[in-house]
Amino acid sequence: MKFDILTLFPEMFSGVLHSSILKKAQEKGAVSFSVTDFRDYAENKHRRVDDYPYGGGAGMVLAPQPIFDAAAAISEKRESAKKPRIVLMCPQGERFSQKKAEELAREDHLIIICGHYEGYDERIRQHLATDEISIGDYVLTGGELGAMVVVDAVTRLLPEVLGNEESHKQDSFSTGMLEHPHYTRPADFRGLKVPDVLQSGNHALIEEWRNKESLKRTYERRPDLLADKQLSDKEKDWLSKWKKDE
Amino acid sequence: MKFDILTLFPEMFSGVLHSSILKKAQEKGAVSFSVTDFRDYAENKHRRVDDYPYGGGAGMVLAPQPIFDAAAAISEKRESAKKPRIVLMCPQGERFSQKKAEELAREDHLIIICGHYEGYDERIRQHLATDEISIGDYVLTGGELGAMVVVDAVTRLLPEVLGNEESHKQDSFSTGMLEHPHYTRPADFRGLKVPDVLQSGNHALIEEWRNKESLKRTYERRPDLLADKQLSDKEKDWLSKWKKDE
Repeated sequence: MKFDILTLFPEMFSGVLHSSILKKAQEKGAVSFSVTDFRDYAENKHRRVDDYPYGGGAGMVLAPQPIFDAAAAISEKRESAKKPRIVLMCPQGERFSQKKAEELAREDHLIIICGHYEGYDERIRQHLATDEISIGDYVLTGGELGAMVVVDAVTRLLPEVLGNEESHKQDSFSTGMLEHPHYTRPADFRGLKVPDVLQSGNHALIEEWRNKESLKRTYERRPDLLADKQLSDKEKDWLSKWKKDE
Repeated sequence: MKFDILTLFPEMFSGVLHSSILKKAQEKGAVSFSVTDFRDYAENKHRRVDDYPYGGGAGMVLAPQPIFDAAAAISEKRESAKKPRIVLMCPQGERFSQKKAEELAREDHLIIICGHYEGYDERIRQHLATDEISIGDYVLTGGELGAMVVVDAVTRLLPEVLGNEESHKQDSFSTGMLEHPHYTRPADFRGLKVPDVLQSGNHALIEEWRNKESLKRTYERRPDLLADKQLSDKEKDWLSKWKKDE
């Protein structure tokens, strides 16, 4: 899979793209990353990429020409069989989710555009982007961190990227529930103890404890995740008990 | 404000912490960042920070000792008047929001812990962290990108960081509505035109157009944001018209 990132701050990406799983994914040939400064495509002599907003107001707006031309040049260069998805990182976009990551992981080529300043000229949104994504309801300086989040979430879903095929299947948001608590050695850390059941060796009991704790944590912290969840009779019993105890 | 980040991948941070607004915020003295590899605090001779989970299962769990000791050493070194907030980045945490960013921006010292692998030993969560934060419902390789998101969102709220005092007030999520469309020159970009009203010079009309477009976009994309919103009579009229048109 090929990722092209368009940004005014290419230097932000090197640390992230060359560490940990993303580094390994490149070494395995599962992905390649290319970061392009779209200022290089500005046709005006001062290499300006932004301009004042029509209608007045504070802040500068990213002009259409450099971004349209950078995306066109990249699409042409890659010669992908399929048209690339062009993702605009912006606060007005669809909220990023695990489902969206799974959808994007089926593509061959993603172009991700990172804005800065007040926003994008609307024509970029309407006539160039195929997707608009926001990573959450908070204000960031630019789209760069969002692009890194999308790249990371998508890359780890690609075949061969994670060593253990199974390891992403049980993560939170893949199962639709929050994970149960984990414990490791020592059994007694400065007086803080690991629950007995986890040291019992009784796998059925351990499994039940984990299911129950996972459900409890989800119920307490993210009840919204339970709305569409199919629950077993036992799980329903636990839930109604917790509700009664409140 | 002082940010301390605990991570196993310190090299991921340099590009982000030394670019754009975060770079300027440090130069102005508004913030300082320090990134600590908590592996340096592991007491065992192989500098291991993780171990097998009690009760079995795939994946490794971050052990309590290195993280407890790294956080304690940092708290002591900083000699803050107030106890630091200790933020654990994790999928089970509270969803990060602009409101949470505003709350954290009132602190003097934040310690942000980035996990990796299967998760944290539960005792870190229960007995060390003061906050658990998730940046969204998607699975990432580690907590590092989340920590960068928190650092960016919080830093830009600090006094003196943004040049234009006003510029963050009108952002999406600060007003509770998505932003209206922006346009800049040229008025005609390859046949794609800027709306006439924005070129009219009539400020009252422009203001009305922007309010209406902002409301419309919020209604279409994020109706949840309108639930608690006080609307004017005019805004209510627009909304009921759009609802009727569907």
